Amino acid sequence: MIAETEPGGRRAQLHLSHQTIQTPVFMPVGTAGTVKAVPQDTLESLGAEIILGNTYHLYLRPGHETIHRLGGLHRFMSWPHALLTDSGGFQVFSLSGLRKVSDEGVRFRSHLDGSSHFFTPEHSMDVQIALGADIAMAFDECTEYPADRSRAEESLRLTMAWARRSLDHFRDHRNQVVWRNEFEGRTQSLFGIVQGGMYTDLRRECAARLVEMDFDGYAIGGLSVGEPRALTLEMIAEVLPLLPAGKPRYVMGVGYPDEIEQYARMGVDMMDCVLPTRAARHGLLFTSEGRLNIKAKRYAEDQSAPDPACNCPVCRRYTRAYLRHLMQAGEALSGTLNTIHNLAYYFAVMQRVRQSLNA
Amino acid sequence: MIAETEPGGRRAQLHLSHQTIQTPVFMPVGTAGTVKAVPQDTLESLGAEIILGNTYHLYLRPGHETIHRLGGLHRFMSWPHALLTDSGGFQVFSLSGLRKVSDEGVRFRSHLDGSSHFFTPEHSMDVQIALGADIAMAFDECTEYPADRSRAEESLRLTMAWARRSLDHFRDHRNQVVWRNEFEGRTQSLFGIVQGGMYTDLRRECAARLVEMDFDGYAIGGLSVGEPRALTLEMIAEVLPLLPAGKPRYVMGVGYPDEIEQYARMGVDMMDCVLPTRAARHGLLFTSEGRLNIKAKRYAEDQSAPDPACNCPVCRRYTRAYLRHLMQAGEALSGTLNTIHNLAYYFAVMQRVRQSLNA
Repeated sequence: MIAETEPGGRRAQLHLSHQTIQTPVFMPVGTAGTVKAVPQDTLESLGAEIILGNTYHLYLRPGHETIHRLGGLHRFMSWPHALLTDSGGFQVFSLSGLRKVSDEGVRFRSHLDGSSHFFTPEHSMDVQIALGADIAMAFDECTEYPADRSRAEESLRLTMAWARRSLDHFRDHRNQVVWRNEFEGRTQSLFGIVQGGMYTDLRRECAARLVEMDFDGYAIGGLSVGEPRALTLEMIAEVLPLLPAGKPRYVMGVGYPDEIEQYARMGVDMMDCVLPTRAARHGLLFTSEGRLNIKAKRYAEDQSAPDPACNCPVCRRYTRAYLRHLMQAGEALSGTLNTIHNLAYYFAVMQRVRQSLNA
Repeated sequence: MIAETEPGGRRAQLHLSHQTIQTPVFMPVGTAGTVKAVPQDTLESLGAEIILGNTYHLYLRPGHETIHRLGGLHRFMSWPHALLTDSGGFQVFSLSGLRKVSDEGVRFRSHLDGSSHFFTPEHSMDVQIALGADIAMAFDECTEYPADRSRAEESLRLTMAWARRSLDHFRDHRNQVVWRNEFEGRTQSLFGIVQGGMYTDLRRECAARLVEMDFDGYAIGGLSVGEPRALTLEMIAEVLPLLPAGKPRYVMGVGYPDEIEQYARMGVDMMDCVLPTRAARHGLLFTSEGRLNIKAKRYAEDQSAPDPACNCPVCRRYTRAYLRHLMQAGEALSGTLNTIHNLAYYFAVMQRVRQSLNA
């Protein structure tokens, strides 16, 4: 990563094995090996350079060993650009049933079939190496909100011990990634995740310890979990200066369009969120005129573009009336077109930020 | 229509207001103003020149008056190429509840909300003129199979009376189509529909009477309703020679890939069917190796293209293993990709037929 810190954000390139990424970047979430409802060539034409895969989902279905045998996640989903996988931890805590956490790891039941599974930091690394994303994430515990101080301390202790084990195991095995011979010996990167609840001293302690461990990049996790935005902002502002300027900084799971712009201008390089894609499927469009609920009756005969200021393929071709009809009629095309617009809107926000940082 | 009858089928161009169509042609079904799960630009890139809209569905939702106010169906769905609407009759008989048929028309209940509606030939024409497709269809009764002779005779009597009323009303009002000033005074065309059950003499009688009325084209309806294929073939073979060579001939609601090739080679110009699109959403792919059920476990790690002989965007990019995963995971992209392939396969069949007729 060649990055320069500047007031108002930083403009950089992140050189990953499969793709050089222009940052600040917003990363769409492609949970189960697909950004829901959008074909890969459409993502390319929108300018997506990196997307997320969810380790928990892919581990359960079709299984990381299957994906490994099929040449890794890039080849499996025909996405020759960059990929990032999360550690599986967040979904274990948010989706699965009957969790039992110990120092060793987490036992949980699949939300698909109730089967029992055990994830440790080492196992998360093995799964992520099998998937073979350009960036893997350390196995962490996402501290819930609100959490009292002793709970946040205990959670942080676990996250830091797991970060160490993640890194050690990853270093020993990262060269086993299936595409190791394709990119002049380059392999996967591993990012550590700063936790600590909403306690600034715990956040600072965590950041310092992770930086000592020397990860390839650093994420700030445990945000956007229900806390007021002022707190999110405070945690980000507290942690960012402690992270090394030469490595990428990633805020996980954010946010609304104004949030991603705000955080990018604070010096955040990478963000991801299900919001643009999930909201799209429920008919919520982000536009230059604000949020637009395309289901609303007032759009039934509205012939204007979803966002008249947007130049995306959906806004160039279709009307609000048509998108509203597709949603009313329960048509599959609804999710596709709404998602294309929302992603284009998010990408345009980031492009505007990057352009302002180029100037 | 400039058409020449030749042994082995006929190659022609059908000049419609919005698009000149290369025939023989297969027309995808776009029920509610969308070919389910496929964006319009993708349909264009696959070479679609004409698609169907279902009058019954569009009448109920969003309503023909809404579509008329929005500039007609072409503009509403952003499809500047050719469109054909059916008469609504087939769906009234197959989808709606509590039908009551009289000489005047059909009273029925909406399958959406149970509301009561009355369709007459005149009303079907008004609705189709409001929708503004390039080709409208006469209001008919699709005779069920099996039907005894007296039932088929009675049904045919109704269809012929309704054909006359459809044509008279259409001729009086076709110039009201919303795009009437855009194409040098050209307007919509109306096709008559040959019914008669599986009785060749009734089919012949119907064809002769409709030809006397002088429609812009002729469809053969009431096929693919459960009869053995030999009967379908017999009815088509019986009727085709009775239709004027200079006008388009359309067999409604067919069929499998080998059927559409066979009928095209008998001299049929146009066909439509939900099969490629509906089957796709259920995981059935048509390939050069036969039908392929992409849900099957044996494709879980199959890295070959869905159809190795196919050059469509899906077969060029994705594997059977990936399509199977999307289906297993209930991902929306599954329907989109499967449908793109099946439509490409059907279009390739028709293109092969057209090329062989060019030679």
